[in-house]
Amino acid sequence: MKNQNNLVASANDHSVYLEINQSKSLSSKIEIKSLYTAEDTSDLPHLNSQPGEVPFLRGPYKSMYTEKPWTIRQYAGFADANDTNRLFQQALAEGSQGLSIAFDLPTHRGYDSDHTLAGADVGMSGVAIDSVEDMKRLLANIPLDKISVSMTMSGAVLPILAAFIVAAEESGVSAERLSGTIQNDILKEFMVRNTYIFAPQPSMRVAADVVEYVAKNMPRFNAMSISGYHFQEAGADPILELALTLANGREYVKHAVQRGLNVDQFCEKLSFFFGVGSDFYLEVAKLRAARVLWCEIVESVGGTSAKAKALRMHCQTSGWSLTAQEPMNNIARTTLQSLAAIFGGTQSLHTNSYDEAISLPSEGSSRIARNTQLIIQHETGICDVIDPWAGSYMMESLTANVVEKVKSIITEIDEEGGVVKALESGWINRHIQTTAATTQANVDNGKHVIVGLNQHNSVASHQSTEYLNIDSSRIRSQQIDNLIQLKSNRDQLAVKRALNSLTNIAKTSSGNLLDATIHAIKARATIGECIEALEKVWQRHSKAPSYVSGIYKDCMKSNEGWESCCIRVNDLAIKLKRKPAILIAKLGQDGHDRGANVIAAALTDVGFEVHQLPMFQSIEQTVSEAVQRNVDVIGVSSLVGTHLELLPVLTSVLKKYQKKFHIVIGGVIPEEHIKTLHSHGVAAVFKSGDSITDIANELVNLFNI
Amino acid sequence: MKNQNNLVASANDHSVYLEINQSKSLSSKIEIKSLYTAEDTSDLPHLNSQPGEVPFLRGPYKSMYTEKPWTIRQYAGFADANDTNRLFQQALAEGSQGLSIAFDLPTHRGYDSDHTLAGADVGMSGVAIDSVEDMKRLLANIPLDKISVSMTMSGAVLPILAAFIVAAEESGVSAERLSGTIQNDILKEFMVRNTYIFAPQPSMRVAADVVEYVAKNMPRFNAMSISGYHFQEAGADPILELALTLANGREYVKHAVQRGLNVDQFCEKLSFFFGVGSDFYLEVAKLRAARVLWCEIVESVGGTSAKAKALRMHCQTSGWSLTAQEPMNNIARTTLQSLAAIFGGTQSLHTNSYDEAISLPSEGSSRIARNTQLIIQHETGICDVIDPWAGSYMMESLTANVVEKVKSIITEIDEEGGVVKALESGWINRHIQTTAATTQANVDNGKHVIVGLNQHNSVASHQSTEYLNIDSSRIRSQQIDNLIQLKSNRDQLAVKRALNSLTNIAKTSSGNLLDATIHAIKARATIGECIEALEKVWQRHSKAPSYVSGIYKDCMKSNEGWESCCIRVNDLAIKLKRKPAILIAKLGQDGHDRGANVIAAALTDVGFEVHQLPMFQSIEQTVSEAVQRNVDVIGVSSLVGTHLELLPVLTSVLKKYQKKFHIVIGGVIPEEHIKTLHSHGVAAVFKSGDSITDIANELVNLFNI
Repeated sequence: MKNQNNLVASANDHSVYLEINQSKSLSSKIEIKSLYTAEDTSDLPHLNSQPGEVPFLRGPYKSMYTEKPWTIRQYAGFADANDTNRLFQQALAEGSQGLSIAFDLPTHRGYDSDHTLAGADVGMSGVAIDSVEDMKRLLANIPLDKISVSMTMSGAVLPILAAFIVAAEESGVSAERLSGTIQNDILKEFMVRNTYIFAPQPSMRVAADVVEYVAKNMPRFNAMSISGYHFQEAGADPILELALTLANGREYVKHAVQRGLNVDQFCEKLSFFFGVGSDFYLEVAKLRAARVLWCEIVESVGGTSAKAKALRMHCQTSGWSLTAQEPMNNIARTTLQSLAAIFGGTQSLHTNSYDEAISLPSEGSSRIARNTQLIIQHETGICDVIDPWAGSYMMESLTANVVEKVKSIITEIDEEGGVVKALESGWINRHIQTTAATTQANVDNGKHVIVGLNQHNSVASHQSTEYLNIDSSRIRSQQIDNLIQLKSNRDQLAVKRALNSLTNIAKTSSGNLLDATIHAIKARATIGECIEALEKVWQRHSKAPSYVSGIYKDCMKSNEGWESCCIRVNDLAIKLKRKPAILIAKLGQDGHDRGANVIAAALTDVGFEVHQLPMFQSIEQTVSEAVQRNVDVIGVSSLVGTHLELLPVLTSVLKKYQKKFHIVIGGVIPEEHIKTLHSHGVAAVFKSGDSITDIANELVNLFNI
Repeated sequence: MKNQNNLVASANDHSVYLEINQSKSLSSKIEIKSLYTAEDTSDLPHLNSQPGEVPFLRGPYKSMYTEKPWTIRQYAGFADANDTNRLFQQALAEGSQGLSIAFDLPTHRGYDSDHTLAGADVGMSGVAIDSVEDMKRLLANIPLDKISVSMTMSGAVLPILAAFIVAAEESGVSAERLSGTIQNDILKEFMVRNTYIFAPQPSMRVAADVVEYVAKNMPRFNAMSISGYHFQEAGADPILELALTLANGREYVKHAVQRGLNVDQFCEKLSFFFGVGSDFYLEVAKLRAARVLWCEIVESVGGTSAKAKALRMHCQTSGWSLTAQEPMNNIARTTLQSLAAIFGGTQSLHTNSYDEAISLPSEGSSRIARNTQLIIQHETGICDVIDPWAGSYMMESLTANVVEKVKSIITEIDEEGGVVKALESGWINRHIQTTAATTQANVDNGKHVIVGLNQHNSVASHQSTEYLNIDSSRIRSQQIDNLIQLKSNRDQLAVKRALNSLTNIAKTSSGNLLDATIHAIKARATIGECIEALEKVWQRHSKAPSYVSGIYKDCMKSNEGWESCCIRVNDLAIKLKRKPAILIAKLGQDGHDRGANVIAAALTDVGFEVHQLPMFQSIEQTVSEAVQRNVDVIGVSSLVGTHLELLPVLTSVLKKYQKKFHIVIGGVIPEEHIKTLHSHGVAAVFKSGDSITDIANELVNLFNI
């Protein structure tokens, strides 16, 4: 796939990055009327449909929450397997009803904790899992035949699912008794989330092999959870989110059918995963519409079983909507979003913690997030009625509108040649980033009100909250010790044989990759070793960064602050005799690039020369590029809590060069870290919620001329 | 009215208290179906009705929130006028849209701050207002021609409304330009809230005089806000709450018509005030049904104008539903309740602060409460659609059910002879307390789940929160200084004349009481002096306490913990050769008696001999009664933050007697006060949420035999 299109670049091909200057706006906006009456619903086709029946408008099941409410499933994981196991035990004791494992970024990317590129990310935004032994510690004393386990894993899906299966088996629970979900949704990784390992083509084979294996051996397990959540987090509105998710779903089905799987068999193994943002009515309608649309899609590709046609989903409240300012406001936001998910008929739900815009969630904030769901389940009577909005003039009408609008976007995608082509052509990227830039501009210019951020700000002092501090170096050294022990106690020959066999299966396209990985994991190969065995056949994939300029500027027209900031940047450029230049860098394995892309686009618009590198560069590479490109500022975007470890490294690497840079940082950064960052030479720290104008002005100030 | 019935007793007639042993259950329970379909709404009469049109099912106004959202109106007030003015200024700067003044209890009860009975309550659960000068300080720099002001005042309505009118006039805003609401709902004071001053008959005259004056002189002002909120807080379910509120409303209309007011004129001056609890769908349906029912009532008494028929309301989220355990859970509760109020179409809303089960609300928690409403208004799109639930099979059906059920309860009230007779016969009391006792039992036995209280409790340590500490003695001495200054600077003769004239008007039933009070206030008579002028004609009213025993016991049948506690109390009685005896006391002017009544009933059920006194006894009277009745325990119920001041007084009064009592206390008590209370000889501190079984067991332990 390499270099087949302008969005794919090798890790060394730094010069390829894309600045998209024009974007046809996608009219995914739904007009909401102020008054709906009986006339608005008189012609609707599914008004008399029943829950549990085609097209599942009113829910995938007959009784919905009246017999059993949705599953409270909080995505959680940090530090090492023992730490996270304690967290799980406590969560189950306090009311969680299923587990959802958050893996750290090196695990997602298939690096063991002792890999040089794992570094500061070990155990930070999820639990570090290097082997089946870690997986066994992670799941110790959890009854896997009773508690369903969801794993958000797509990149390193083979060794992680293998480790889960082996760990369960060795604790006495066979694969056929396991319930839960593996995400295994690689398309959206290329589109937005960036925790891929291999290129799209081999990745699609991996995904299909996983589905094949699960379909044969794990009757209670979902083999794929197709995610819309990450589209919404990256900037897509609910309509675009739904269109992309369903289009990806359809792509997987087609791929599976090509592989010889039967449509029903495949679709029965699928579930979906949506984000639920603040647009209340639209989010409810989106989830209701999703079921109708998916039912039609499955029927259109020849699906016949009711189970295959009934879309089941997990939802998560919006991370993007949370503010670092007055974090307790986020409890209300999350409550409203979770209610929308519930009114939409979700099967399980994760509610975000109120402090996530500042730090990794603390124990206390996680508890409040979970309690929000328990309160709705136990105290409000909301579960007592199936699809309570049924018949509402507004909701039924809006649901039908969403169905139509999403269909028209899927048609547009088809006109691009399908999702893979739309990915390669930059169509998807362009539309998501356009919405992201527009949203940012509307927040900055006050059209999109966020309470406590751009309106109704507190005149009192800020709330300080407890936050989670993880000592990555401690976890790393522990993990390394465990790896040494594991490797010294295993049958090396058996491991080598199993890994060779995995390599061969990847090479020859014969046999099932998951099956082979299970053998390797059982022999105590590590997660990283399994991925390395595959790397012998398939190269690691790299994607050129891209951002969509021009949109932010358009939205800010005639905003005074912005205009005068443009003038300041221009004046600076005149003095410098060139545009001021900034390199926007992500360090480590952090693939969350919405912020970096929005900043890149808006700083371009204000008059900076902006450079971006492909994801996952080492600090050395980053600095060397900064020197080569002769930028003035290195702007680090940090969302996973690794800044305290990586910034000193950056500083020390910089010492090798004469050139002086202004180092600035932005993202999820606790108030308490700011002083430390300054002491390491960071010139400015930007918090989530700072406006682009403020950021640009502060950058200009740094030049001090 | 004195002694006309068994619920009314003079302050000295302590022997009259009522223990009601049997209660016919009111079937106000609405059955919710799990599935609603088009069939459920096919016969409903108002399905095609429009917002702003009779019967106002879809809202009192045509455009509802699409043009202007509900008014964010936070009930607030503490300490002195300057403190509360600062609070108001900040709230308006941060997004509040109208004011709602919380007065302290002495003001409600018509005592100036220098009155011996005002004591520890001065400035505690509201602002202390003694004169028009305080009112002027309270409203300084608030544009009264633009900001609407709501005053929760029924007892001392005459001098408080007079002070408001005079303060506004002296700041340049004439009465006709003032907008807002005065509560002026005295019936519910006798029924539940207890901040009455005079007996029902003179009180009804006061209320009518206020309406008459406002109707003539204040076109933008609501003369009465008929409250259901206090019924719900006292224990009524939403159906009983609505029935009592509407029955009271009808009673006021009848009274006004008898006084010669025209129905339309009177009803146009009315608004309503509802509590919104956790029963989500039912609360939405209740508010929609309220409008339909009120429209019918107004039409039935000859009302013709649309404005008179359109019920407008203020809502407040449920105080009772808040827990002291994990207080941040209350943010989610309040968010859900406020959403129900909004879906129900409220005109203004107060959201409770998350710490109100622990202490008076702090500045930070008040801000979060207000932000909850701002987030719904600005971030969710919820305001974009009028009556969004219209057409919903469930909601329309439920609304119609509520209409029918409430009508049947109003019929029952009519069969009792109307609300006043139902009050006198104990019917109202019995039904509210039956629900309160049942709810308490269901919480204690776990049938009614409250997250973090009786299920899913935190296994981690408790959250500590900042809380508001008010120094009542400082405020009291300031207020006294101000009173001395006021009294030394006024024209004494003019004051005397004005007060005499007020007394005469009360005596002769000629002239308008509010008009006369305005003259007195303008001459700088104090709030207390105006009430004293009326006391020359009408005695202060006193009500015998009452509680409904038997209900709690019934609900706890076969609960192991309860049964063994009953045995322990019985064993204790055998040893004592009599039942252990407790006096449940309220100290100061605190009239919140739900907790005291529930405890009295349940302790009776478990085997204690329970004594209660009429409200508002002095500490000396309380102790003297405890001695006379030879009780073992004095149990103080404290909800307004006065315990740190009053308990030491209680202890010192007790020293005069040989008899030793066990002193226990329960209510809204910050964690940080417990140690201090123990040091003053308090044997046990019970927190909101403690089960009756736990309380009873701890009481038995005190006997140490």
